[in-house]
Amino acid sequence: MAAVKDCLFCKIIKGEIPCNKVYEDKDTIAFLDIHPINKGHALVLPKKHSETILDTDVKQLEKVMAIVKKIAGVVVKTVKADGFEICINNKKAAGQVVPHLHVHIIPRFNNDGLRYDWATKEYKGNEAKEIAGKIKNLL
Amino acid sequence: MAAVKDCLFCKIIKGEIPCNKVYEDKDTIAFLDIHPINKGHALVLPKKHSETILDTDVKQLEKVMAIVKKIAGVVVKTVKADGFEICINNKKAAGQVVPHLHVHIIPRFNNDGLRYDWATKEYKGNEAKEIAGKIKNLL
Repeated sequence: MAAVKDCLFCKIIKGEIPCNKVYEDKDTIAFLDIHPINKGHALVLPKKHSETILDTDVKQLEKVMAIVKKIAGVVVKTVKADGFEICINNKKAAGQVVPHLHVHIIPRFNNDGLRYDWATKEYKGNEAKEIAGKIKNLL
Repeated sequence: MAAVKDCLFCKIIKGEIPCNKVYEDKDTIAFLDIHPINKGHALVLPKKHSETILDTDVKQLEKVMAIVKKIAGVVVKTVKADGFEICINNKKAAGQVVPHLHVHIIPRFNNDGLRYDWATKEYKGNEAKEIAGKIKNLL
């Protein structure tokens, strides 16, 4: 399993930096985020270094998501959450801080005051149809 | 495929409501979000109705994520994004508007001004270790 020098999460995986681990198997590790959005906020990651879902082997990604499902159910039970977010930030432009793929499980509570403060954009004329057509053609 | 009455996404799947479709197979559909955070914002969903990842069959979830990976790469190319978010809001407390599982693919651009305005919490004393221990025990 090639660890990447200076990758914080590779160091955690190798045990060089401690974490509050909740799960580990040969391919995957999960631990609590050190800066939780809400308590119980966990990260699930493949041990094999990749940066985003695009350079992650699809089988590995599927496995991570199966484990995310399992852990999310337990996190919800443990902190008595009313809901939860699953987020993957891919690249710095999307808020990815550590460039080693990780899936956030963020417990949410009714009226916890957290929200996306993101205004939505509007498509003009046929713009949406054109973008959808381009995507469809490239798939 | 049991559609749920009054479910907006089941109606889109049945073709009763139009959408800007980018992908479809027997189990999965993907289309542009009608209220895009950024242009190219797409949703990928299983056709079989479920609400969150917790009541979604794990094989179905894995399949959806494999398709998310494929579509995300093409969305990034199409709108020339610098990064992208993958988000699943589970339950109303987490901002889920339509209670039919859907994965958001949100293209992001350097300095697009979008950010999570979420302050982080702090664990006191042994709290993180205790929560991690509880989760571990329930897994």
